[in-house]
Amino acid sequence: MKGLWLESSKIRFRDDLEKPIPRKDEALVKVRMAGICRTDLELLKGYYPFTGVIGHEFVGEIVDAPSSRDRIGERVVGEINAVCGQCRFCRNGLTNHCSNRTVLGIVSRNGAFAEFLTLPLANLIRVPEEIPDEKAVFAEPLAAALQILEQVHIRPQDRILLVGAGKLGLLIAMVIHRSAARLTVLARYDFQAEKLGALGIETVLARDRLTEPFDVVIDASGSPEGFDTALKWVRPCGKLVLKSTYRGSTPVDLAHLVVNEIELIGSRCGPFRPAIRLLGNDEVDPSILIDRRLPLKEGVEALQAASKSKGKILIDIRN
Amino acid sequence: MKGLWLESSKIRFRDDLEKPIPRKDEALVKVRMAGICRTDLELLKGYYPFTGVIGHEFVGEIVDAPSSRDRIGERVVGEINAVCGQCRFCRNGLTNHCSNRTVLGIVSRNGAFAEFLTLPLANLIRVPEEIPDEKAVFAEPLAAALQILEQVHIRPQDRILLVGAGKLGLLIAMVIHRSAARLTVLARYDFQAEKLGALGIETVLARDRLTEPFDVVIDASGSPEGFDTALKWVRPCGKLVLKSTYRGSTPVDLAHLVVNEIELIGSRCGPFRPAIRLLGNDEVDPSILIDRRLPLKEGVEALQAASKSKGKILIDIRN
Repeated sequence: MKGLWLESSKIRFRDDLEKPIPRKDEALVKVRMAGICRTDLELLKGYYPFTGVIGHEFVGEIVDAPSSRDRIGERVVGEINAVCGQCRFCRNGLTNHCSNRTVLGIVSRNGAFAEFLTLPLANLIRVPEEIPDEKAVFAEPLAAALQILEQVHIRPQDRILLVGAGKLGLLIAMVIHRSAARLTVLARYDFQAEKLGALGIETVLARDRLTEPFDVVIDASGSPEGFDTALKWVRPCGKLVLKSTYRGSTPVDLAHLVVNEIELIGSRCGPFRPAIRLLGNDEVDPSILIDRRLPLKEGVEALQAASKSKGKILIDIRN
Repeated sequence: MKGLWLESSKIRFRDDLEKPIPRKDEALVKVRMAGICRTDLELLKGYYPFTGVIGHEFVGEIVDAPSSRDRIGERVVGEINAVCGQCRFCRNGLTNHCSNRTVLGIVSRNGAFAEFLTLPLANLIRVPEEIPDEKAVFAEPLAAALQILEQVHIRPQDRILLVGAGKLGLLIAMVIHRSAARLTVLARYDFQAEKLGALGIETVLARDRLTEPFDVVIDASGSPEGFDTALKWVRPCGKLVLKSTYRGSTPVDLAHLVVNEIELIGSRCGPFRPAIRLLGNDEVDPSILIDRRLPLKEGVEALQAASKSKGKILIDIRN
């Protein structure tokens, strides 16, 4: 089959990949569309040593399922952590942190930038008809945005600062904006402020426009500088949610955290079902994020485009 | 009056200090005994720019109180944050984070290593007769240890790791040990393990003796290496409580925090009344921490001793 293969930090298009064979509890999914995430670009930079097909944001169709033939034909999105169900984290409901997990296109499992992928059936969630592929493909990052609300109680009286209005940042902004709290987004580019403004979300373009500290700050900047700004603007006893992963260590003034009793909360994957609900009701419309759509055979170019683009690059796998 | 004066990172004994005059809402306290804390030693190293009398752990006697003469004669300990009661943090119950606060012996307020100090009457808490000075002087650090329980719900099924068994570490160990959770302390020295063992607290002396990750880890190590170890041993979705303040930045692998959805919680000053209750009932006995007791005129030597000692050095102000 065709796919984008990462090896020794080099990505290339291959047409000689073996079509995966689903295990008994898995399904074979024919990928329809996939999205490029900053994590994919970090993998190319060696953020995590991975050899194989990358990509983890996708929508596809179940074409084989040894133990559940009735699901063949379903259009699905998929939770990316494939878990053992046996370890102490699984047994305690922390399945996303399964110590034996593989992660689609990230850890020991080939991903979505290929014609086919396999995932456990339990990971695959049916997409209602009314959600087109171009929106369904955002289920994974939208779920990651919703994870913030799973972890932190956002109160109506809270003032929230979001640092970063990139692809994930915009989704987070849309989700937080739906709460009753007052949201301010610190964006970098005019076009981001325009997009946010069109949604009725308050945006500032320079940190010197901020005045008072915030109850909750979300760092989706993907940079140590953004983290610094985020930390600076959390009020005492406030919370700082970290949504970015990047390689290496960041210098942190831990005494500032202690003196101001700040809570720093790491946040990763989130719940798919509410994400699909929001997409289905058009309560979150991720279309404004889309920059370009390229076919799989131009996947390497798509990744190059993604490293320069401020918007979302989609890979159309059927072409 | 006599006292230890810090100026340009130099500490010296002076006998020409002006006796402070209490404002209307304050009391004049004749200090009886004071304890040396790691923060005092950090101040000497320039952790925070402060000129004046240092020291913030004390027990003393109210000798003047313009607005409450009936309190004269009370033996007291004192909360170290003197607050405005007006700012938005005070109004929201975050008085310890008052934006206009002065902090005894740390920020814009002369401290306890002197014959007299002033604090707002509201900060001063009567010490029951049954608690001798040598124990009462531990009210402040014991309150700081209890703050962990104010911030984090420690559950009976939790496994807790405490990194560091210094002065604050031992108090934290005693407090956590009283919960139903299973506590392991990672200590550095044999004598610490002996002290902890005598209290029935499980101690290991080398990190390679640790096997499984912990639900809650408390870093009271006072060092970046200790923080590293602490971070390494928190389980996914677990909590890491930071109790140490030291100067400068520490490199942190923020991606590790995000991927494992770890919560990092800064923790500073705590509640005095439960601390006094525990001391009064002998439920926490801090005496085992005491190394030496020196008179105020040997205060500079006391600070030098504290920088080398693993135990608590007390300054007897009446001598």
